[in-house]
Amino acid sequence: MSGLIALDWGTSSLRAFRFDDTGRLAETRARPWGIRHLPEGGCDAALAGIAAGWPALPRLACGMVGSRNGWREMAYLDLPADAAQLGKALGSVRAADGMDVHLVPGLRDPHGPDVMRGEETQLFGALARRPELAAASTFILPGTHSKWAVVRDGAVRGFRTLMTGELFAVLRQHSILGATGAEAADDAAAFARGVAAARDSGGAGAFSRLFSTRALMLDGALAPASAPDYLSGLLIGEEFRAALADGLARRDTRLQLIGEAALCERYRRAAALFDIELPAPIEDAAAHGLWRLATQAGLVSIHTRESRAC
Amino acid sequence: MSGLIALDWGTSSLRAFRFDDTGRLAETRARPWGIRHLPEGGCDAALAGIAAGWPALPRLACGMVGSRNGWREMAYLDLPADAAQLGKALGSVRAADGMDVHLVPGLRDPHGPDVMRGEETQLFGALARRPELAAASTFILPGTHSKWAVVRDGAVRGFRTLMTGELFAVLRQHSILGATGAEAADDAAAFARGVAAARDSGGAGAFSRLFSTRALMLDGALAPASAPDYLSGLLIGEEFRAALADGLARRDTRLQLIGEAALCERYRRAAALFDIELPAPIEDAAAHGLWRLATQAGLVSIHTRESRAC
Repeated sequence: MSGLIALDWGTSSLRAFRFDDTGRLAETRARPWGIRHLPEGGCDAALAGIAAGWPALPRLACGMVGSRNGWREMAYLDLPADAAQLGKALGSVRAADGMDVHLVPGLRDPHGPDVMRGEETQLFGALARRPELAAASTFILPGTHSKWAVVRDGAVRGFRTLMTGELFAVLRQHSILGATGAEAADDAAAFARGVAAARDSGGAGAFSRLFSTRALMLDGALAPASAPDYLSGLLIGEEFRAALADGLARRDTRLQLIGEAALCERYRRAAALFDIELPAPIEDAAAHGLWRLATQAGLVSIHTRESRAC
Repeated sequence: MSGLIALDWGTSSLRAFRFDDTGRLAETRARPWGIRHLPEGGCDAALAGIAAGWPALPRLACGMVGSRNGWREMAYLDLPADAAQLGKALGSVRAADGMDVHLVPGLRDPHGPDVMRGEETQLFGALARRPELAAASTFILPGTHSKWAVVRDGAVRGFRTLMTGELFAVLRQHSILGATGAEAADDAAAFARGVAAARDSGGAGAFSRLFSTRALMLDGALAPASAPDYLSGLLIGEEFRAALADGLARRDTRLQLIGEAALCERYRRAAALFDIELPAPIEDAAAHGLWRLATQAGLVSIHTRESRAC
């Protein structure tokens, strides 16, 4: 029996994908066992738990599991980097069951400097699913720490981290902008208004417009329940404003979202206000990236259905 | 006996100034009784406590004491506004001792919209002390919510709030940028480096550079103990970058700081990296502003030492 157990192992969650030997995704599991929320027994117990009942297959993990606070720290691989280079740079850690867990290193952009762990695997998964994007594209991976990554000729050439999701969370929970005392409404117009405020801030940028969230409320011009959507629009709009100012995106750049549908939909709505039409996001990119890197590294050999029948 | 009890009453602290009838500041007291930290008995108890033993003089208060959560909500006065207009717009509340406490309204810039409470009094105090600045100046009032205010011909014409101090606090306490595990050092070079990173971010702005605080640490290029100064520089530098981009400051604008010496010194060091030389700050501006507005409103009549001798 051949195949792969692929692990997308982040700070707050762990997802496991079992591939059969044709590269078909046979089963997916998720547990809340990110590296900051491990069960008793640590990484070994989490792995044994999430893979319970699965055959003893090669295992490959990406994400914060390879960070200083993870299972084993993997040095970042410097840009530019393509899938072949990343596949050659895998490391491993010996699990309590006596078998290795292979680990994908993160990427480092020495120009920033900037770093990513996990998103590199999503990028190569996206390229595996949509090879036509490999020539020249900019990928947007929204999240706690959003990434904008430039790909040329199949290699990641540069990227930048924007702390959009984390800023939204800390401002909502700990700043005066979150002290509305109201349940959050779902207000698409307030979101669009926030995006427009960031877009129209010109070179000054949305930092200088953050307080407008409060001032508009005091003015009676923004309902407290709509303030979260306005703030979300302001911060996501700022990503597009800054990316355009920075040359990470140009109006003729091929832009592609990678990520979960609901969050990506916000980015598509924001992009539309910059006259940028974003196609539907690529989902499950981590799983496909892990499979691609595993084949690249020779951890698995692909059997076509025909050869398997022999 | 004549004179004034002037109250600078904010969210977290209360300061009281006793002026004699010549306008001389005779005594200053401070208590931690901001409107969110009132003693038992509320505003009345705080006033009685801080003014204990002082004669029964007219009383004038500015700041968040005039907000919705203060003693009495005072409607904002719309821009443009000069000292005479603000003096005419005072309100009052009857204290438990049977005497009024007069209240200074905040200002509203309808263009933002944006609002201030307390800083308007500091602005007119600064103009009282430095009349030569009334013709054309931009004032910077650093703080939790920094204000940049444009004054022309003695009137406040526009202003903008930047949440620099609050952003620094929430990012330090609640985001990954504060999770350094190190005691903060006092690192002027790291501060300057943060200012330069904001300055050199061009039109993209410092939002897009926030994560560099973390990336530089992971890279071994920024000591964890120096991260707070780097972040402080990034955020204060962003104020100057955005103000220049926004036209709030031009390189030929007369810029003047108002505020406490240590914080203002950071702004002077940041300004120097933008080739802007800022003079020493105007301190105790709130007290002088309260005296000026009290005379403007006729709450006190000024006796010269000569007339008093009659």
